[in-house]
Amino acid sequence: MTADQTQTATDATAAYDRLEERVERISNIGNAAGVLRWDQEVIMPDAGTPARAKQLSTLSSLSHELLTDEETGDLLAELEAADADLTDDQRAVVREVRRQYDRATSVPQELVEEISETTSNAHPTWMQAREEDDFEQFAPTLEKLVDLKREYAAHIDPDADPYEVLFANYEPYLDLETAEEILAQLRDTLVPLLEAIDESDADLATDAFAGQFDDDDQEALARDALDALGYDWSRGRLDTAPHPFSSGTQFDARVTTRFDEEDLLGSITSVIHEFGHANYTIGLPDEEYATPLGEARDLTVHESQSRLWENHVGRSRPFWDRFLPTARERFPELEDVSPREAYEAANQVYDDNLIRVDADELTYHLHIVIRFEIERGLISGDLEVSEVPQVWNDKYEEYLGVRPETDAEGCLQDIHWSHGSFGYFPTYSLGSVLAAQLYAAAEDELGDLDDQIRAGEFDDLNGWLRENVHQHGKRYTTPDLIESATGEPFTAEYFLEYVDAKYGDLYDLE
Amino acid sequence: MTADQTQTATDATAAYDRLEERVERISNIGNAAGVLRWDQEVIMPDAGTPARAKQLSTLSSLSHELLTDEETGDLLAELEAADADLTDDQRAVVREVRRQYDRATSVPQELVEEISETTSNAHPTWMQAREEDDFEQFAPTLEKLVDLKREYAAHIDPDADPYEVLFANYEPYLDLETAEEILAQLRDTLVPLLEAIDESDADLATDAFAGQFDDDDQEALARDALDALGYDWSRGRLDTAPHPFSSGTQFDARVTTRFDEEDLLGSITSVIHEFGHANYTIGLPDEEYATPLGEARDLTVHESQSRLWENHVGRSRPFWDRFLPTARERFPELEDVSPREAYEAANQVYDDNLIRVDADELTYHLHIVIRFEIERGLISGDLEVSEVPQVWNDKYEEYLGVRPETDAEGCLQDIHWSHGSFGYFPTYSLGSVLAAQLYAAAEDELGDLDDQIRAGEFDDLNGWLRENVHQHGKRYTTPDLIESATGEPFTAEYFLEYVDAKYGDLYDLE
Repeated sequence: MTADQTQTATDATAAYDRLEERVERISNIGNAAGVLRWDQEVIMPDAGTPARAKQLSTLSSLSHELLTDEETGDLLAELEAADADLTDDQRAVVREVRRQYDRATSVPQELVEEISETTSNAHPTWMQAREEDDFEQFAPTLEKLVDLKREYAAHIDPDADPYEVLFANYEPYLDLETAEEILAQLRDTLVPLLEAIDESDADLATDAFAGQFDDDDQEALARDALDALGYDWSRGRLDTAPHPFSSGTQFDARVTTRFDEEDLLGSITSVIHEFGHANYTIGLPDEEYATPLGEARDLTVHESQSRLWENHVGRSRPFWDRFLPTARERFPELEDVSPREAYEAANQVYDDNLIRVDADELTYHLHIVIRFEIERGLISGDLEVSEVPQVWNDKYEEYLGVRPETDAEGCLQDIHWSHGSFGYFPTYSLGSVLAAQLYAAAEDELGDLDDQIRAGEFDDLNGWLRENVHQHGKRYTTPDLIESATGEPFTAEYFLEYVDAKYGDLYDLE
Repeated sequence: MTADQTQTATDATAAYDRLEERVERISNIGNAAGVLRWDQEVIMPDAGTPARAKQLSTLSSLSHELLTDEETGDLLAELEAADADLTDDQRAVVREVRRQYDRATSVPQELVEEISETTSNAHPTWMQAREEDDFEQFAPTLEKLVDLKREYAAHIDPDADPYEVLFANYEPYLDLETAEEILAQLRDTLVPLLEAIDESDADLATDAFAGQFDDDDQEALARDALDALGYDWSRGRLDTAPHPFSSGTQFDARVTTRFDEEDLLGSITSVIHEFGHANYTIGLPDEEYATPLGEARDLTVHESQSRLWENHVGRSRPFWDRFLPTARERFPELEDVSPREAYEAANQVYDDNLIRVDADELTYHLHIVIRFEIERGLISGDLEVSEVPQVWNDKYEEYLGVRPETDAEGCLQDIHWSHGSFGYFPTYSLGSVLAAQLYAAAEDELGDLDDQIRAGEFDDLNGWLRENVHQHGKRYTTPDLIESATGEPFTAEYFLEYVDAKYGDLYDLE
């Protein structure tokens, strides 16, 4: 190194330290807000809302100001100019901050505020429209949100497909073309598979978990399930919330669930799903806390972790061999249910279900495809808001063979659009698809995992996920992470093989 | 108004709005930190500490930066110059922010950080010294903290008594002379009163609550007590914590307590104490949230509220007439205890107790006087750290007639000095003294409250407190608030009358 080169490297180090300090502050503010939101969802007294809203709004403004501050831009420019002096990890951090910075600084503050205000007001409007089954009430708000989000996308990239820009808010590094292809494959495969299932004479034990199950005992069993999977209680807790979620950091990744006395199976699969999210969070490296290297890759990867545990483990035959005896200890009335019957009940296809959140592992993706196709149309301008109910119902009939009779059980059922969240839905299905790819790669390396699951041994599987996914945080882009973990680009192949084998067996298909 | 005057008033309004916005931000950050600390004390998983410490440190830095920013000083100067254009409420806000600003900007950041680091390290050192009953281990740290706090005080006001400066951190508007006089009066009255009690032949029902009491039933009874007093559950909750506290805002003021199977009485009085704090917080005006007018006056007033409910209500004879039947529903074994016996048990004087937090209503203040006298000596330089154990034990013998045999049950028992909190202790006693003055003023206006308490009617008392104390937030300084509420300056007269009457009756004194 020449003296000049040394000086440049020193400058880069100093600039990097300053960027990191800024990033850590932003991240700590975000994590503090996460605790406040958890508290609000889980335990806050009812009257706390106005003060909590102000606290969260203050934290959000502070974070936004730190991110969009001129100094952030200067530091990024300085570091990008000194790219050769950075380590790979530093380069990854700069890449992530650059992306956030560009997005945050492209959109005028007034538009951000208008979107925020419109979505705040949209929520009660949507709630009431759904309650009164009256799409007309929600339509003007939805139109406004579509317009605002198109405007938002144009600020970020006026030359891009606006839906692609919005999708990238949730899944920054997967190109939309890949996502679209995968969703089309799901549609083209699952629609005929579902028809075959419909025509099948197979007689599954769909009522294996029929009955009334006490909430407290369900909670005890949920804790048993978390114990069985190896949830690290020193870094988490289980509580109830109206809408199950998990949140937190690698030091404190909490799970929530809910209990319905008539749906024991639902509470078990839901808590395993949330375990998958929390377990990913816990696997992020402690020493990178509050930097992008210690934070989860985006929604698809997160959902891949919840779906892997929920579906590939929690809905597997060997899991029920293992777990049914535990369930029987809490609920002796399950004594006559066999592991095969439990497995069948956990995997039954609900062919007349209209509601996404109640869907089974298979039809779920058709619910998603419908939303994806509609929201793409809305954002591209190919579809008018007024056409949504008709198109929604037609697509349900075409893909799922059922037709909603009301908008409340049709296009008004989900909260996402009232949040202005266009581009979010696809990540649910992409997560399932990735789960299958990761699970196949894990089995490719570790051998068939059925015996381990049957023995309640999850260390190998979790070790593989820690090593190949969790420990990297945002080090790689999503496509690079997938390729590094599985040796292949993102593909639906493994998911389609998986459902083909599983449902072929369950429903005696050819 | 001339055109010039109008312009000045407009400027002042604009400056005030900007100051208020800044103050609200600072307050919202502080309230967010309060939620994080509540979570940490009550429900955070063990491993969460490192991340939580960083979140809290970030919030603390952001708050400090907003407060000490040059613009805060400019706005204050502008508003003080335009004093005539401000309303009384605006003037109060400016006064409070000025005080915080001056304190925060006087102390160099390096000293703040050194104190913060020293107290962080002091805590485990103190814990271990206490555990091993070895004052020598803690002495060097205590010496360093005394030096740092003297230095801190000198930055704020080099001409003042440094203890006065530190005391003013907790009680900004009460002059130390008044506080000192009141504490001396307590000492001079309570020492002989305690001697008389010691010689009394009265046979109190000290064992009325002897026994084992199930934790869950104790919690149910704690909830009964909160119900009985009118705790607003829509704005609060009850949880357990290792050290009971209450925290929050007027929208969300939570109470914590703890349960000891052998100390039912302790859990009842403790939860009533915390109710008093939370009830004050809930009484702060909603519309002034996040400004000084919506925030509690300092420690003495806060403690007056907890002590008023704990002692003047919760340890009163009519309260036990009312509440004993409720307690009997949870604990049928109390059937043979009479209200008079419960009252006696709740007010017994523990004449051989060495521990402040286990003290009764009377001896408590002698524990405080001892700490006050010692910490004053330390800060003034009249007392060496090495002399503390000896002086501590001598004073216990002189004032309380008991001598600690170890430092663990002597001068190492409290956490406060390891926090660098010199000047905090007096506010506990001042709070009790103020409680008596406020209660007397309330009865002066409302008439004797015994019948209302016996009937479980607390609306009049609470209404009086809302009107005369709670609704004002920090509108008045503490002396002005006391004078406005009671018509008199702060005085120990009512407290001394109260203990004289109460303990004269209990212990058959002349």
